[in-house]
Amino acid sequence: MSILFTQLSKYWSFIILFTTTFWVVTSYQATAQIPASQVPAYTEVFSAINTVWMLVAALLVFFMNAGFAMLEAGACRTENATNILAKNLIVFCVSAAAFFIFGFRYMFGDSGNPVFGQIGIFVDFILPSAANLNPFPEGFEYLRNFWQDRSFAAIFFFQLSFAGTTATIVSGAVAERIKFWGFILFSFVLVGFIYPLVGYWVWGESGWIASTLNFHDFAGGTVIHAVGGTAALVGAWLLNPRNGRFGYESETESFANEEDPEKFVPCNTGFTTLGCLILWLGWFGFNGGSTRFLDYVPHVILTTMFASTSGGLAILLYSPLVTGYKVKLSSIINGVLGGLVSITASSAYVDVLSACIIGAVGGVLVLIGESMLETKLLRIDDPVSAVPVHLFCGVWGTVAVGIFAQNFSREFSSVNNISQQIIYQILGCSCVVVVTFLLSLLTWTVIGLFLYYANQDISYQYPTKGAGILTLARRGLRVTLEDERAGNDSTIIT
Amino acid sequence: MSILFTQLSKYWSFIILFTTTFWVVTSYQATAQIPASQVPAYTEVFSAINTVWMLVAALLVFFMNAGFAMLEAGACRTENATNILAKNLIVFCVSAAAFFIFGFRYMFGDSGNPVFGQIGIFVDFILPSAANLNPFPEGFEYLRNFWQDRSFAAIFFFQLSFAGTTATIVSGAVAERIKFWGFILFSFVLVGFIYPLVGYWVWGESGWIASTLNFHDFAGGTVIHAVGGTAALVGAWLLNPRNGRFGYESETESFANEEDPEKFVPCNTGFTTLGCLILWLGWFGFNGGSTRFLDYVPHVILTTMFASTSGGLAILLYSPLVTGYKVKLSSIINGVLGGLVSITASSAYVDVLSACIIGAVGGVLVLIGESMLETKLLRIDDPVSAVPVHLFCGVWGTVAVGIFAQNFSREFSSVNNISQQIIYQILGCSCVVVVTFLLSLLTWTVIGLFLYYANQDISYQYPTKGAGILTLARRGLRVTLEDERAGNDSTIIT
Amino acid sequence: MSILFTQLSKYWSFIILFTTTFWVVTSYQATAQIPASQVPAYTEVFSAINTVWMLVAALLVFFMNAGFAMLEAGACRTENATNILAKNLIVFCVSAAAFFIFGFRYMFGDSGNPVFGQIGIFVDFILPSAANLNPFPEGFEYLRNFWQDRSFAAIFFFQLSFAGTTATIVSGAVAERIKFWGFILFSFVLVGFIYPLVGYWVWGESGWIASTLNFHDFAGGTVIHAVGGTAALVGAWLLNPRNGRFGYESETESFANEEDPEKFVPCNTGFTTLGCLILWLGWFGFNGGSTRFLDYVPHVILTTMFASTSGGLAILLYSPLVTGYKVKLSSIINGVLGGLVSITASSAYVDVLSACIIGAVGGVLVLIGESMLETKLLRIDDPVSAVPVHLFCGVWGTVAVGIFAQNFSREFSSVNNISQQIIYQILGCSCVVVVTFLLSLLTWTVIGLFLYYANQDISYQYPTKGAGILTLARRGLRVTLEDERAGNDSTIIT
Repeated sequence: MSILFTQLSKYWSFIILFTTTFWVVTSYQATAQIPASQVPAYTEVFSAINTVWMLVAALLVFFMNAGFAMLEAGACRTENATNILAKNLIVFCVSAAAFFIFGFRYMFGDSGNPVFGQIGIFVDFILPSAANLNPFPEGFEYLRNFWQDRSFAAIFFFQLSFAGTTATIVSGAVAERIKFWGFILFSFVLVGFIYPLVGYWVWGESGWIASTLNFHDFAGGTVIHAVGGTAALVGAWLLNPRNGRFGYESETESFANEEDPEKFVPCNTGFTTLGCLILWLGWFGFNGGSTRFLDYVPHVILTTMFASTSGGLAILLYSPLVTGYKVKLSSIINGVLGGLVSITASSAYVDVLSACIIGAVGGVLVLIGESMLETKLLRIDDPVSAVPVHLFCGVWGTVAVGIFAQNFSREFSSVNNISQQIIYQILGCSCVVVVTFLLSLLTWTVIGLFLYYANQDISYQYPTKGAGILTLARRGLRVTLEDERAGNDSTIIT
Repeated sequence: MSILFTQLSKYWSFIILFTTTFWVVTSYQATAQIPASQVPAYTEVFSAINTVWMLVAALLVFFMNAGFAMLEAGACRTENATNILAKNLIVFCVSAAAFFIFGFRYMFGDSGNPVFGQIGIFVDFILPSAANLNPFPEGFEYLRNFWQDRSFAAIFFFQLSFAGTTATIVSGAVAERIKFWGFILFSFVLVGFIYPLVGYWVWGESGWIASTLNFHDFAGGTVIHAVGGTAALVGAWLLNPRNGRFGYESETESFANEEDPEKFVPCNTGFTTLGCLILWLGWFGFNGGSTRFLDYVPHVILTTMFASTSGGLAILLYSPLVTGYKVKLSSIINGVLGGLVSITASSAYVDVLSACIIGAVGGVLVLIGESMLETKLLRIDDPVSAVPVHLFCGVWGTVAVGIFAQNFSREFSSVNNISQQIIYQILGCSCVVVVTFLLSLLTWTVIGLFLYYANQDISYQYPTKGAGILTLARRGLRVTLEDERAGNDSTIIT
Repeated sequence: MSILFTQLSKYWSFIILFTTTFWVVTSYQATAQIPASQVPAYTEVFSAINTVWMLVAALLVFFMNAGFAMLEAGACRTENATNILAKNLIVFCVSAAAFFIFGFRYMFGDSGNPVFGQIGIFVDFILPSAANLNPFPEGFEYLRNFWQDRSFAAIFFFQLSFAGTTATIVSGAVAERIKFWGFILFSFVLVGFIYPLVGYWVWGESGWIASTLNFHDFAGGTVIHAVGGTAALVGAWLLNPRNGRFGYESETESFANEEDPEKFVPCNTGFTTLGCLILWLGWFGFNGGSTRFLDYVPHVILTTMFASTSGGLAILLYSPLVTGYKVKLSSIINGVLGGLVSITASSAYVDVLSACIIGAVGGVLVLIGESMLETKLLRIDDPVSAVPVHLFCGVWGTVAVGIFAQNFSREFSSVNNISQQIIYQILGCSCVVVVTFLLSLLTWTVIGLFLYYANQDISYQYPTKGAGILTLARRGLRVTLEDERAGNDSTIIT
């Protein structure tokens, strides 16, 4: 108890600062927004069916939060379930604040420059009136033209649900050992700054990747999944594995090389399966809602569906045939999810049989990626396979656009031949991944150091001697060994 | 076994009566409905998109049953999970019967009087024909004009899903100690009579509160949540706390004043989190489906979303900052739900930043309300915080309409200034709460006495001496001490 | 480990064959599909609202997979939960492949003959283009005319979700004792061949049952539920009961006649309840999506809803009144599901009060059916009551069309009088059930013999002496006694 108070006193300044800023700016905006003169004079055409479908799709994506929560809680050990559930629940709240205050303008505001969108805070939402059924705030002309007759509020909600997905991908990879506040702060920065930056390059008004490279990413194979997966990779790597996953912390600063004697079994396979099925359902909204043309929606849903089923079937045949192991439930789940991530970048550009191939490769890629992360060289502990599923399959799916995209798709307007397009896809994806990697590393480190210096008493003790920046950051980000052994449930706030 | 038979023999008459009435009236209506002469001659305009959105919204609200079931089952102790699940499953069946036979006509039938709607039983549903795509039965002109080109069946389904919510709010507050049949009977009366009565005052054809006070309740902050919360409060108070929650039943008729030594920990935090996320999803249908204007739906969804995330964030900052306690998962959940209830009454009237304030206050209000109920003065045992979430936030949200509503909203047509409107909101809400309180108390008491006199053998033994009406009612409503200790799972029918 | 390798070596040929065939044919089709000359020249009218509703309905039906997974995992014993979850997850993947490669053409392709649809493999999906918003491949004129302005991809997805339901019904009845691959292979045959055959008779272009008998099955009471339930019945009967369910396997080849001393309690009532509520939600899409006329959707949803609530209420009153037993949660769940299955065949033809009767009878029928299967004569072990719920209620619902259907429904065009229609319904349903029974028996037997001869080492040992075909098939299909005792979780692949 007293430790908590000590700790809180250290956060005091941060909390005060944050809250004050929030409310001051909020109040300013609240008064600033009322004048009717801000309401644009023109009347938009408002398409009810387009907007309703966009909302339905956004709600499906929103529900993916429940999918991630179930998937991750079920895959962790019992004693950490509550902690991971709390993270998955609050992360959407944090994302909403970060995207509303900072991210949305940076990502979708018109700026005319190739690197970042509009500088500014908050988004002005204007109530529809009889004279204006579909009011857009100023500075979002590109978005209005792109989505045509959809409501601005619907577009924001749809995009927010995507941004929230990016943040929630991270939580699984760093599960069971990250401090609650470390995760919260990182999520805020990820959704408020990192994701909008690289997102603007691909989806923004005049982002350099899309315009220079003719790079295509339909629903976010790179922008959402590779970005989220990269941030997850950096976090999982920086934090070191859970104790016992690849040996134990020794006195000599590193993980011992013993084989893992402890079992890290999923605590509830019912939850993981339910989580997978909820994510699967949500993905139909994720991809299906990303097309502007309603007549494309059924096709997008079909490619999404066949990619996922092929991912599952690939695992079913690959496991016994190639590896000689039994099929595990978790492999089927990750196969399906791998198929879904793989088709995300291309679901409106490819035909159904290409989708089958893309999904099957994605499914197998997850299994290979899992083994890769566990090799002695890497030894990265990713409790829910977030990195193989989201990063590896996200990259594969982006490259697959170059291989399988069909020119006659109204969603795909490339004039390149196949080999050119493949190179462009690889280039674009690489830039996003590298930048995300660097920015994530910076962010994780700064947050880690902040938490370390804010309260060294509750920091991780190992390694005992090292004092490099990354070591200190890890010690700030990671829960104490006692908490890790007992489970993080008792330490939600640390 | 023999006890069961004895008990059943006592219910015999009641069951016979109910079943007979049901089938006789049913058969009468079935024959009465067939003649085509009843079908109105006019052809309605039928709007597909409006009706489809209404159905989607109603399905989301229907799915909130799963949310409540998960939330409450997860928050109870393991041994009572089955019992609370059974209640949450059957309550929608009971609500449907009560609303079909009695409630809908009382609430939405045209009557011209300010106190109650149409007197009569059952609703006549007419199959659409080529000549009449949208047949309305007679006596619902107000409803038809209000919802314009929606199908009558869709409107009924939408309203039923709302009525079902009212009933299911109660189950959490009385969990772990109420008799199964006591809850069933109360739900029937609540949805068949109490809710339609006060609902008519606010949403009915010429209800006195709406017409006299210019009272506004957009999606049911008062009509659904305050009503359900009040009924829950009366039930939780009348039943006394679970044994051990605030001390134990002593020989001397009252709860001892000792501190609680026993833990009442939620049995499954995965279920509670899933329940919260399902409810969150459902709320977008709850509020989003309540507007007549499709172009308002996205805005309503945005205010709903920001109120809920602000509720969650408020808890995140409030818990450590103000109370000095750690953030608990259950607090985050209740913060989100508090934000959602708070915005229900005003989501179409306010802008996004007001929604943030309304939701944040609602989130904090839940924590304060929880502490309030646990004070020595009150000691009301509400296992899932149904009263703070639904009653307190429902009232706050209703009052907030007066503070934050914007006159230029097409959904809000008040000509009052702010202070007038606040007073009207307080007056209207108070009338509904007081009347619901009295009628709930009457209903709980009558049902308790009925169950007590029907079979004193299986009634609660404590307090041993008292014989006041409320004491006897409590003894009739509450399961025996043995059953409470063993868990209600073995006594679903008692 | 070595056993696994031995076993895998035996599957080698089968796996190679399957995979090769799949990819060869796939590649062929992939190249064959590209030429633009295949794209029909005409431009379809594309109705956005009709297609969006169809997709929403299909997504709800797809989500029923989660419902079945939760319902069945919760109803099984803990040690078998993972196994049943894996089956429920992969079965949709298998169904998708079977329906895409074989089933869809057999069921919905134009052939002009009364017994089966188009012979051929794969379905050609054509991307929409500016000139053709709604491209249909050749050979599906009947489907296009029936569904009018819906997109072909949407229709396929909708029908696939139905086909997947048929397969997933089976998994519950054979749970806890069937080999993983036995179930996979049967599902492939069921969805690829059996279901499309009988489905064509009722829903196909010129199926003999629909055209000869004027048989009506609105959303699949016979085609989906009776077919799935029959396949489940054959499987459950052929496999014999779980050990201990009705006595134990003795040395003398048969189950001893002792009473069951072991409890087969559901492992997680939270999951079963959640599963029921998800299925309930999905059914609104199942029935509501099956009408061509959007103005009928609300009515269909209402009849569906009242049938389910009546099913639940019937159990609530029937259990204590007639059987003298307490109401069990599982009975309420099955009552609701029984009501839902019962109304499936007739939800667009009947009025609301008829729906109440149909649902109530269906609910009670489940309880009666459960007792019937447990009688000494039958002793069929159906862990989740799939047979009573889907077969018995499916048949009852089909017959109920003859009793309650109203001629003025635009969906129902019978010119028969009631008694004729009842006879036609019974005849049609019987034909489907009998044929499904025989084909299922054949399929189960062939798969069982294949698995038996492929690897006798891992086959079931009892009965020791018998060598009839059915005995051998059972020994091939069933897991070893050790695996059954330990739970199938360790033997997903066997």
